[in-house]
Amino acid sequence: MKERLKEQIDFIDKYLDKYLAEKENPQNIIYKAMRYSVFAGGKRLRPILMLNVCKMCGGDVNEVIPFACALEMIHTYSLIHDDLPAMDNDDLRRGMPTSHIKFGEATAILAGDALLNRAFEVVSEYDGDNVKRAMKAINMLAVSSGTEGMIGGQIVDMESEGKEITLDELRYLHLNKTGAIIRSACTIGALMGGGSEDEIEAVDEFAKNLGVAFQIQDDILDVTGSEEELGKPIGSDAEENKNTYVRLVGLEKSRELSEEYSENAKKALDIFGERAQFLKELTDYLINRKN
Amino acid sequence: MKERLKEQIDFIDKYLDKYLAEKENPQNIIYKAMRYSVFAGGKRLRPILMLNVCKMCGGDVNEVIPFACALEMIHTYSLIHDDLPAMDNDDLRRGMPTSHIKFGEATAILAGDALLNRAFEVVSEYDGDNVKRAMKAINMLAVSSGTEGMIGGQIVDMESEGKEITLDELRYLHLNKTGAIIRSACTIGALMGGGSEDEIEAVDEFAKNLGVAFQIQDDILDVTGSEEELGKPIGSDAEENKNTYVRLVGLEKSRELSEEYSENAKKALDIFGERAQFLKELTDYLINRKN
Repeated sequence: MKERLKEQIDFIDKYLDKYLAEKENPQNIIYKAMRYSVFAGGKRLRPILMLNVCKMCGGDVNEVIPFACALEMIHTYSLIHDDLPAMDNDDLRRGMPTSHIKFGEATAILAGDALLNRAFEVVSEYDGDNVKRAMKAINMLAVSSGTEGMIGGQIVDMESEGKEITLDELRYLHLNKTGAIIRSACTIGALMGGGSEDEIEAVDEFAKNLGVAFQIQDDILDVTGSEEELGKPIGSDAEENKNTYVRLVGLEKSRELSEEYSENAKKALDIFGERAQFLKELTDYLINRKN
Repeated sequence: MKERLKEQIDFIDKYLDKYLAEKENPQNIIYKAMRYSVFAGGKRLRPILMLNVCKMCGGDVNEVIPFACALEMIHTYSLIHDDLPAMDNDDLRRGMPTSHIKFGEATAILAGDALLNRAFEVVSEYDGDNVKRAMKAINMLAVSSGTEGMIGGQIVDMESEGKEITLDELRYLHLNKTGAIIRSACTIGALMGGGSEDEIEAVDEFAKNLGVAFQIQDDILDVTGSEEELGKPIGSDAEENKNTYVRLVGLEKSRELSEEYSENAKKALDIFGERAQFLKELTDYLINRKN
């Protein structure tokens, strides 16, 4: 699995490199800052999901690659802004200085803005035959990263820090903060891949469950992982008073829940038969990861 | 003119109000923060330009209103982020507390992000017959607000603060920072309004010159205006060591330049004959404004 993922990451990175090509003009530093964070060693989970869902639905990955890269840009911008002093105030991410440490706060804010903006530049360059479908996909992308998606979840996360929240509230938070763009990665992949309405719905069910399982695993790793593997201090969630599954239901129950959600995710793909094999294996791989 | 503008502002605000409707959910505060800055008394210059260019080209304003509102959201997000402590560190805008003073820095960052994001949500809801044209318009919008447009200009502005720059460098800075979205306001209006290639080109020439004239007038007002009319302290540009036309070429020459650019702007519209009357009058009005 690691090797197959490496191959896909290289494919995605080739396009990200092209879409984020540096320009030799007076604003050159913004390109450097955007590239620094995008090429800081991300797992490319969202683009990988999109490409493989597209393939599973019988589509052409060239149709979705701009969307896959856009989603990675959006994911990266959210990390840059999350790390800012006024937000989580993190100095390190994946073992490297965060954007505002490396480039200063003003440039980090603008680099985040620029990545969000660039995402929509890239997808609106579409000039294929399915322009109506592409327009719909742009809308799904935008909604998932907005106030009823990722940004909404970030606000709720911020507001709930240091407060006791319920499991339902935690689920709502994650369904938006990390879940929304994992879902749009999958549903855009299905839509642009030519999937039927039933298939898009199945893929959405898969993504919804995978997103929760993935998040729980993140919370578990913050407690059980090693600093070297994670690239950040262990126990930082607890220290920052973050609401996590481990804090709310304990480690053992968290493991059970993660298992349960990942089983539901895989089950949702049954209608694709053999074609779902890679995504099912990927689900297991993600839930057993160490970083 | 004031009354005619008031009517148009009301029309635009009705749609902004709809597009930014508050939702009663846990992230409700983000809607309040977005609305606070959008409804803080902006001139709506960019939407007004777009609507009137569209009309001048014989188009239907209902086709461009989502784009007009999107541009206003993008303009507003850029002001929120510009005002942040790490950027210009401004406490007041148009006589009111800036977003981070009112809502805190973290929410202000997210409100800016959310407005940029919402702009693309709104325009990608397009379901009319000219979807290819709308896709092109989205791309023009995105490019004008990105690293080769507004954000690029902001970076250059930041990098040049406190340094002596040439008139050419100042022109480059403004052509991007404020000029790019004034141009896309006009060219999107022309494109979506069904303008010919020649007409779009003429409108672009108009916008390019208007943008410079408008910026020079801004610089002049910072020196000659009254605090009450501007809603911010007089002379703040000089105090912050900003590069302005007044600082580079003096007040008298700045007035000459402003006049020259606004004449060029109006001349570019001659191919529209009578239909250009409103935009020509608007140009004069903007260059003689007091705030």
